[in-house]
Amino acid sequence: MGILEKVNYPEDVKRLSISELYELAEEIREFLLYNIANTGGHLAANLGVVELTLALLKVFDPPKDKIVWDVGHQCYVYKILTGRKQKFNTLRKFSGLSGFPKSKESIYDSFDTGHSSTSISVALGFAVARDLKNEDYDVIAVIGDGALTGGLAYEGLNNAGRYNGKLLVILNDNDMSISKNVGAIAKYLSKVRTKPRYFKLKKAADSLVEGIPVVGKNLSKFVRKVKGSLKYFFFPGTLFEALGFEYYGPIDGHDIERLCEVFKSVKDFERPVLVHVVTQKGKGYEHAERFPEKFHGVPPFDIETGNHLSDNTSKTFSEVLGDKLCELAKRNPKILAITAAMPDGTGLSKFAKMYPQRFFDVGIAEEHAVTFAGALAKEGFKPFVAIYSTFLQRAFDQIIHDVCLQNLNVVFCVDRAGLVGEDGETHHGSFDISYLSLIPNLTLMVPKDTKEFEMMLEFAAFYQDGPIAIRYPRGSCKQVGFYDEIKLSEPEILKEGKNLAIFSIGRHVSMLYDIISKNKLDVTLVNVRFIKPLNTEIIKRIVRIHEKVLIVEDNSVIGGLGEKIKSIAAEERLPKIKHIAIPDKFIPHGSISQLYSMLGMDKGSLTKVIMELIES
Amino acid sequence: MGILEKVNYPEDVKRLSISELYELAEEIREFLLYNIANTGGHLAANLGVVELTLALLKVFDPPKDKIVWDVGHQCYVYKILTGRKQKFNTLRKFSGLSGFPKSKESIYDSFDTGHSSTSISVALGFAVARDLKNEDYDVIAVIGDGALTGGLAYEGLNNAGRYNGKLLVILNDNDMSISKNVGAIAKYLSKVRTKPRYFKLKKAADSLVEGIPVVGKNLSKFVRKVKGSLKYFFFPGTLFEALGFEYYGPIDGHDIERLCEVFKSVKDFERPVLVHVVTQKGKGYEHAERFPEKFHGVPPFDIETGNHLSDNTSKTFSEVLGDKLCELAKRNPKILAITAAMPDGTGLSKFAKMYPQRFFDVGIAEEHAVTFAGALAKEGFKPFVAIYSTFLQRAFDQIIHDVCLQNLNVVFCVDRAGLVGEDGETHHGSFDISYLSLIPNLTLMVPKDTKEFEMMLEFAAFYQDGPIAIRYPRGSCKQVGFYDEIKLSEPEILKEGKNLAIFSIGRHVSMLYDIISKNKLDVTLVNVRFIKPLNTEIIKRIVRIHEKVLIVEDNSVIGGLGEKIKSIAAEERLPKIKHIAIPDKFIPHGSISQLYSMLGMDKGSLTKVIMELIES
Repeated sequence: MGILEKVNYPEDVKRLSISELYELAEEIREFLLYNIANTGGHLAANLGVVELTLALLKVFDPPKDKIVWDVGHQCYVYKILTGRKQKFNTLRKFSGLSGFPKSKESIYDSFDTGHSSTSISVALGFAVARDLKNEDYDVIAVIGDGALTGGLAYEGLNNAGRYNGKLLVILNDNDMSISKNVGAIAKYLSKVRTKPRYFKLKKAADSLVEGIPVVGKNLSKFVRKVKGSLKYFFFPGTLFEALGFEYYGPIDGHDIERLCEVFKSVKDFERPVLVHVVTQKGKGYEHAERFPEKFHGVPPFDIETGNHLSDNTSKTFSEVLGDKLCELAKRNPKILAITAAMPDGTGLSKFAKMYPQRFFDVGIAEEHAVTFAGALAKEGFKPFVAIYSTFLQRAFDQIIHDVCLQNLNVVFCVDRAGLVGEDGETHHGSFDISYLSLIPNLTLMVPKDTKEFEMMLEFAAFYQDGPIAIRYPRGSCKQVGFYDEIKLSEPEILKEGKNLAIFSIGRHVSMLYDIISKNKLDVTLVNVRFIKPLNTEIIKRIVRIHEKVLIVEDNSVIGGLGEKIKSIAAEERLPKIKHIAIPDKFIPHGSISQLYSMLGMDKGSLTKVIMELIES
Repeated sequence: MGILEKVNYPEDVKRLSISELYELAEEIREFLLYNIANTGGHLAANLGVVELTLALLKVFDPPKDKIVWDVGHQCYVYKILTGRKQKFNTLRKFSGLSGFPKSKESIYDSFDTGHSSTSISVALGFAVARDLKNEDYDVIAVIGDGALTGGLAYEGLNNAGRYNGKLLVILNDNDMSISKNVGAIAKYLSKVRTKPRYFKLKKAADSLVEGIPVVGKNLSKFVRKVKGSLKYFFFPGTLFEALGFEYYGPIDGHDIERLCEVFKSVKDFERPVLVHVVTQKGKGYEHAERFPEKFHGVPPFDIETGNHLSDNTSKTFSEVLGDKLCELAKRNPKILAITAAMPDGTGLSKFAKMYPQRFFDVGIAEEHAVTFAGALAKEGFKPFVAIYSTFLQRAFDQIIHDVCLQNLNVVFCVDRAGLVGEDGETHHGSFDISYLSLIPNLTLMVPKDTKEFEMMLEFAAFYQDGPIAIRYPRGSCKQVGFYDEIKLSEPEILKEGKNLAIFSIGRHVSMLYDIISKNKLDVTLVNVRFIKPLNTEIIKRIVRIHEKVLIVEDNSVIGGLGEKIKSIAAEERLPKIKHIAIPDKFIPHGSISQLYSMLGMDKGSLTKVIMELIES
């Protein structure tokens, strides 16, 4: 660790020669490997951007210049080189360094992030702000080819491409999202990366050697392919140029000298520039080079073998989804599976192998995933869309507008619901019960453990129509060993007692069950199961016969189960409460006064309600 | 109306000759004009697609073939020609025809819509479903260049571009969103549309005539421009080809014969094809051709003069926003304004003229609008983002992740909140209180009338930091004439009485005030003003001293003001209710058990709470 020892800030990087930078790169890789093997974290992406980060710091001057890392999980090298090397062993630990850029943590972190595809919009905002303030500095967005599959990235490009000032977008192209990247853009980039002349010669040579004539239909296909590749060889940036960018690339992202050269030469362009850099995810660590997906986000692991160290032996919810969905798909040919760049994380890899025709990885494109699912459902299929709770926020409007409005048979498997732990504030799934329960037509379930999750999947596959969401946490949780049949809207009453009624959902149910059993408490425990439709009758009955009620949920205090139960309780007791609002269904068109009178929200209806209340 | 009289269904269209189709086109224009002048509706877009719709029906066979209209407001011609001509005078009226495609209304409407940019994802879903079912029919998405600025459209293109089956996307390019289209894509399309040879000759000729030499810097700029244009003249589809589509165009979208020819020739391609059609918005009605924006969505109007017939004389909320924001911007140079393709609808056109440097129309790109605003706020500005309630759903994640997480000074002006009337179920703003109030750090206000709205804008501009949302309805509402100063979290108590407490917000406040005054009721009336932070203390006090409570709000019954007040009431009375959930703030990283114990959601804390409750 000769050089890294003396390097703490960008100034220290600037002083180094190119050959010293290469040495430093190797030391950083060792440092990353050693640390992440202990803390866990996003290894592969960071191994891929070591040289790129060094070149950026050699040429640009943060915090004056603003570097915006898209998604942000590739910011470790940057953190190490911007004053946070000493604290790096606290990465992702409680009150330690965050695994993502955090402006509260360092002035070098220009904007907080954690979700994908935001960097171009952020960089454009920074650039415009700079111009309005008549200041002068560089703004650089670093975005992966995976993040480029997200619609927001394109909205950013479309707006940045007509901007008349200094703005640099670096496309960090490693042909990977979390898994292998997908979609037309990925195909386009791979054509750009390919060396077609070499390919052409080799192919021709192979044909000669093997004695296979390249003729007929195959020839024309071959020629079309080569022609397409040649086009992108001579005009690699055509896509980005059409979008208003100057294009430079593709450039070897591990060649520090070349990177510095290009960055210096585009630094003073007074217009949007895109530099296309090709890197290898996992670079320098054999296990990660071979299995970049496995080393995207890792728990602590053994450096020698690459094996993950995890004491978790029970099946996770995601694994259960993968297995159960394969079984259900066998029994019901209408079942399809959709993921947004997370075949492994959501447990769907097995399904993808067993049913390749019925599996769709749409890239980091949650909006498309949901609208696409809506159309498949409209045509009679039953797609299961597995997306993490926090990322599903991206498709909030599509769930409403393209699925629930037409009451279509789409099942949302909302993974990573509730707190997720080490990934922190951008990744907690704290809001899903609140934002899903407000949508008309949706059925919303929460399993208390993986066994119940299987039952709910079965229920969703065979017994319930319309849009359904099942939200479940990361990892697994303790089995309660008590399983009523799943019936629409019916909670599961695990215990009946006198002194207190407890309503809960998800992984807190087993925790509460334990507390009650261990302390031999005379308490009612309800596993609510269905947030929607919520069983108002049973809740009313239980609330009426208890003097004390406790609600426990792993979701925001706003808009969650608690507010719903308290509302029901409030209607049961004094004061007499009446609530007039738009009912929980989609409202058709008409003049506002017609609609208000239909809904009892017009002046006449209100007068009547008020009179009745006063006189009651 | 010779031909139209006999035309009711696509079969009738198929029987007509090309010259009859041209006659029919003119009759349809008259029919549209006559009807929409009475009912109001989306005029200009429909006048633009008359020939396109006829050509589609001549070549394709709905409902077997599936035509997916993006946004859907251009579907009137299609409705007229698919069995709904007789009912067309009920358009947009209560229980009449919807102004958008509705599969409940007709089997010819393949998918419901109303929001922008969904059609490619839907069409891909239909195409994949067809393949999985081994059926054979055409799927056609018709998308405007305006809708193409939305990220979802791009996610759709990126996924459709690698699809190996039959899929037709028709780009209906009229250079307009609702206003003039913006962004790099729009620029690109305009280059494709331009005839550069003609342009070059004319420019050269003009220079000669005017005696202005084309030299020096101007020449090189001129040459670059021509070169760019030439490139797109010879390779017009480069952008879409890079995205995996076969490209045909640009084609005159009013030339029925040519349209039919092209549709027939691409009909059997077993791969994704994009046909670029150029149309004129408002075609055939002079007032609409000249002012397509004014005639995008119109109230009833006078055909002769083009004047809107509207009895609304008081200033709308949108107009108040426009005027007030200009005034505030004069006093505070940090104020910026952002809209997503709605400069007129949101009232910001005046601001755009007065402060062109500080105004940003980002196209139909709500996600980018919000993230871009976040970055501007991070750099010290105070952007006001004006978007309709229903469309802001698209940016739900960005409000959380790119604004509220960092507590940035962005003001969301949430227009068209509550019921919007004639546009119906896809456009009602029924959910915003629910989906906004769950977001930590956000201040959420609701003005009872436009005067109070001005006060709230002033408050947002000068007295309150962090993210703020103000939600207000379409149109205007009656002034109450009672205006307490705006103080954070403070409701306005308009009346105090004994027999009933009424809590309300927005346009119902004046309605309730009227009812109370007219009937001389001894009732408390509270204009809540701040949904967030909600004033728990005052609500508790009022709930305690009243036996009856009424809550009235123009928002969903789920997650709105009512549930919040009922929750507070429930905590005040029996049963004693305690609610444990994730608090209303962003939660940092750490192991889940560390976080649970920090939040009092771990086993130990729960045990303690339960014991205390039982013993209390």
